[in-house]
Amino acid sequence: VNDGRFPVKGIAGEMLQVEANLVGDGHAHLQADLLWRSADKATWDRTPMLALGNDRYAASFPLARLGRYFFTIEAWYDPFASLLDDMEKKRDARVTVALEVEEATNLIRQANTSLLSGLPDALATAAIEERSVALARPEIAAIMRYARQDHLVRLEPAKSVDAERAAAGFASWYELFPRSQSGDPTRHGTFLDVIARLPAIRAMGFDTLYFPPIHPIGRVHRKGRNNSLVSAPDDPGSPYAIGSDEGGHDTIHPDLGSFDHFRLLCESAAREGLEIALDFAIQCAPDHPWVREHPEWFEWRPDGTIRYAENPPKRYEDIVNVAFYAPGATPSLWCALRDVVMFWVDHGVRIFRVDNPHTKPLPFWEWLIDDIHARAPDVIFLAEAFTRPTLMYRLAKIGFSQSYTYFTWRNTKQELVSYFTELSRAPVADFFRPHLFVNTPDINPFFLQQGGRPAFLIRAALATTLSGLWGMYSGFELCDADALPGREEYLNSEKYEIRSFDWDRPGNIVAEITRLNQIRRDNPALHNHRGLEFLNCSDDAVIYYAKTSTDGRNRLLVAVNLDPHRVVETDIEVPLWHVGLPDNASIRVDDLMNSTSFIWHGKRQRIRLDPTTSPFSIWRLASTAGALA
Amino acid sequence: VNDGRFPVKGIAGEMLQVEANLVGDGHAHLQADLLWRSADKATWDRTPMLALGNDRYAASFPLARLGRYFFTIEAWYDPFASLLDDMEKKRDARVTVALEVEEATNLIRQANTSLLSGLPDALATAAIEERSVALARPEIAAIMRYARQDHLVRLEPAKSVDAERAAAGFASWYELFPRSQSGDPTRHGTFLDVIARLPAIRAMGFDTLYFPPIHPIGRVHRKGRNNSLVSAPDDPGSPYAIGSDEGGHDTIHPDLGSFDHFRLLCESAAREGLEIALDFAIQCAPDHPWVREHPEWFEWRPDGTIRYAENPPKRYEDIVNVAFYAPGATPSLWCALRDVVMFWVDHGVRIFRVDNPHTKPLPFWEWLIDDIHARAPDVIFLAEAFTRPTLMYRLAKIGFSQSYTYFTWRNTKQELVSYFTELSRAPVADFFRPHLFVNTPDINPFFLQQGGRPAFLIRAALATTLSGLWGMYSGFELCDADALPGREEYLNSEKYEIRSFDWDRPGNIVAEITRLNQIRRDNPALHNHRGLEFLNCSDDAVIYYAKTSTDGRNRLLVAVNLDPHRVVETDIEVPLWHVGLPDNASIRVDDLMNSTSFIWHGKRQRIRLDPTTSPFSIWRLASTAGALA
Repeated sequence: VNDGRFPVKGIAGEMLQVEANLVGDGHAHLQADLLWRSADKATWDRTPMLALGNDRYAASFPLARLGRYFFTIEAWYDPFASLLDDMEKKRDARVTVALEVEEATNLIRQANTSLLSGLPDALATAAIEERSVALARPEIAAIMRYARQDHLVRLEPAKSVDAERAAAGFASWYELFPRSQSGDPTRHGTFLDVIARLPAIRAMGFDTLYFPPIHPIGRVHRKGRNNSLVSAPDDPGSPYAIGSDEGGHDTIHPDLGSFDHFRLLCESAAREGLEIALDFAIQCAPDHPWVREHPEWFEWRPDGTIRYAENPPKRYEDIVNVAFYAPGATPSLWCALRDVVMFWVDHGVRIFRVDNPHTKPLPFWEWLIDDIHARAPDVIFLAEAFTRPTLMYRLAKIGFSQSYTYFTWRNTKQELVSYFTELSRAPVADFFRPHLFVNTPDINPFFLQQGGRPAFLIRAALATTLSGLWGMYSGFELCDADALPGREEYLNSEKYEIRSFDWDRPGNIVAEITRLNQIRRDNPALHNHRGLEFLNCSDDAVIYYAKTSTDGRNRLLVAVNLDPHRVVETDIEVPLWHVGLPDNASIRVDDLMNSTSFIWHGKRQRIRLDPTTSPFSIWRLASTAGALA
Repeated sequence: VNDGRFPVKGIAGEMLQVEANLVGDGHAHLQADLLWRSADKATWDRTPMLALGNDRYAASFPLARLGRYFFTIEAWYDPFASLLDDMEKKRDARVTVALEVEEATNLIRQANTSLLSGLPDALATAAIEERSVALARPEIAAIMRYARQDHLVRLEPAKSVDAERAAAGFASWYELFPRSQSGDPTRHGTFLDVIARLPAIRAMGFDTLYFPPIHPIGRVHRKGRNNSLVSAPDDPGSPYAIGSDEGGHDTIHPDLGSFDHFRLLCESAAREGLEIALDFAIQCAPDHPWVREHPEWFEWRPDGTIRYAENPPKRYEDIVNVAFYAPGATPSLWCALRDVVMFWVDHGVRIFRVDNPHTKPLPFWEWLIDDIHARAPDVIFLAEAFTRPTLMYRLAKIGFSQSYTYFTWRNTKQELVSYFTELSRAPVADFFRPHLFVNTPDINPFFLQQGGRPAFLIRAALATTLSGLWGMYSGFELCDADALPGREEYLNSEKYEIRSFDWDRPGNIVAEITRLNQIRRDNPALHNHRGLEFLNCSDDAVIYYAKTSTDGRNRLLVAVNLDPHRVVETDIEVPLWHVGLPDNASIRVDDLMNSTSFIWHGKRQRIRLDPTTSPFSIWRLASTAGALA
């Protein structure tokens, strides 16, 4: 990544495949080793690299545990192997190899190894043919490989890779507002109410439960319902206006419960197989304790006010931003923010969704993430940055494990193919893990507003199969898309008021989401954002792709009708060539949504996708072994 | 190139366009300067970079003279410009800018510049609106741009570019064997015979005249006609078996003439507008003086022989190779070879075609080319390496100005499109200048052997329009393709015997080559290998492309029928969008081969390419100004 400036992202327990172009002049035999070590080890492990042809070499090494690894390559000329090459060519051409045998024997004599010291004499009286066969034994080549490493070069500086835990690359997130979980819009929900909701969330197949900020909410300039500038006395305010005289970033909103309740919630979630993710939003309500205690952390204007967030003519008066480079802010503010994260790490939280990281300094994030990882290497940071692609990629490079994407606004086949081709291949795929949210409290996409239930199924199918990471904000399963007119914002948004929902409402897609999450768990092809190949389908409304696991043993095909209003019948090409079969072969296929199996004969197949029943299909191809019916 | 490890290639007298992604966090206004200096200057010149959007910035600087330049980028936050941005937005939104005006004035007060010291007081009593307009004057922004460069970063280390003379990127080469120029196969040609040929070569439009080695030829194991192992007493031998008791690499073959004759030839060529290119072939006949004088420069085998070139079962007994890393060869051999090049540089030669550079050490070439360029920056090296692409590219990266290519073996549309897309775009186009030879003494392509005169026209049209560099070996203009049966080698090759040719032989393509070279000279679009875009043409036999000059003012279209045996009629799409015209517009077109002009109406046009008359067409599009008929 950027020629080694940033680490590649990997998953502990997996292998990292390393490839390189290694160029030698002349005809000398080139050898190469891949070297690696974890950051806390001084010595290198090594393994030979294999020549793939055309100067391409490859090897892989295990990311045995969490944390940073370094890796590099050594390459050198091996004169003994060069002689073996010559001997083999000459023997094939039935030309004498007497000179080569003598030169090879000389190399062994000169070699800096005692292992072979007896060999030259032992072979002295043998016939040329016998000697040449003896010299070509693989164990001798293996020793001589390191006996004289002519023109040894090592790639400097070494490259690095961050090995993270599996959840950094494969997770299904469910987002909810804890205060809306009481079932009664007039009663502020608590952590205990959330505990009651855990079984249903887990039953849908989610593994991560994410909350917007859970801290006290400012009273100064508090926003009212639907983002109005004036709030009623009982309006709860936006949880993103963090801090009041009840406390700041290290405090729990008193109406949600105590730290004991929070611990109970985390434990209950863990028992259900759910992990809690918190929001890390670096902004303060005007009555956040820091404004009083640390005025030196804010930028004061000539009129004695703090610069608040604004995008003229818009103003966000309920939020002021800290000033990272203010004279009194380094390092005290930076350390305080780091301590906030460590505070919640110490309370058992290991996943943080970071609000708007692109408006804060990049050096701050690089430092903070490294610092936290040095103490707790299992912490995962998700960047919520909707900005220019270069900046989104930079945030991933400096350490964010996962990133929000433009997925939410990519609806046409051409947009999706182009974007996910970029995301699923090097260089981007090596450092950027796309987290596909179908909606968020801030984004109620027009496509969902206009497409009804089929649109929700379409977007769920895409999100669950195009990356290892997907997420939904509660209400999506109810096909809830009531919006402020003409805006991508929810009507009566939970950001500004307490709500309640009927989670069994007719027309919901709970069963489909449950099935999709189950398919994700069962199929390694869906455990990351790689192995994606778009396939031919003549109908522009149908996107059709193969998703294949890293080891090639799990092969899925996905076809999605992107038009929520039209039944589509179209031909698809079954990629029989992926499993080494001719175009007219037969192959066993499992339809994963319907749990049926059948045989496809030949590569051309006709499919029908009806948005009112199911606008998509997911098929698993039989492995090569069982492919032929 | 390789993240700055190697220089980019440029041409003295041209501008180098530099683009970069520059990412800033937050909303502060980012400024960037492009900095550059020639290698012998200590101080940097600078120019502001322009924001192209999406974090992309661009600027260019002049490569004023030959040699290496360094360039880098500085970027910083400009708080004054940030305030101007805010003021503009607020004024557009009709919001007061009083605070911003006061903050901007404070920045001027604090600025480390005397230029604006009077401004704050001068504006003190003015109205807000007047002050904000005054502060937004461009000259104030230009001064404040450098007044406080917050968070200044510079790209380190600086990148480099080698500025070479125009002939490094744009040249038309003609290759001949001087000894075959007497017009009489029984008389060894001389430099004076070559002088007599100069007007005809120049009349064809060539600017570079290249000779295989002109040195004494070894007598030991000398090759006979058609590469036979036994030579007759009067056989002249291969000029690539360099050296005999008459001398080595710094000697002229006595039958060619003296150094005085060589000087006369160079002067005569220069008067005709032709430059002489010599072969630099690092190999020795067994009777080369170096074998006797410097046995330490060779690799001696256990049986007392020198390792000669072999590719079992093939042997090249008339040639032995020097051993660059032999204990006695560094640095004396390396310096001797450098001195050979300098010897010919001192005799006025500035272009060297290097034989098989990939079988010699890469560090040797990197050192030699740098060393020669330090003494004579106008020297051009052409790499004759037909090997794996990685190695060919590496040779270009370490300093070869030009490179032989796979062009000779790329005959189908798909092959040509794929290869030249790679060659004409970054990263390859930045360091690799493809020299397109249609034939060489070693390569008599099957396509020419089988396609007759149309095949020669096809290949000439491709070579002259796909790169700034093309070359032909004499005989091509006569459509000479007599071959050893089943081989890509010439029958009665000039490598092993003296020949003579009738240069006016019927069926020749002298007129077409003359016209093509004239078109090349007249059209900047053909002066380099960039600006190539393949366009739609439904017939797979027809390759069709646009070639556009760097400044966009010279636009050619080329269509070539790749089938020498079939008349093709097909539709092409005229890229009216290139000049900003709608699909139904009319445009004036010059047919450059026929020197006619006409109007095309609409983007779809039908063309006819008859191999027996002309298998290709070259059109020049009118510039936008004169585009509408």
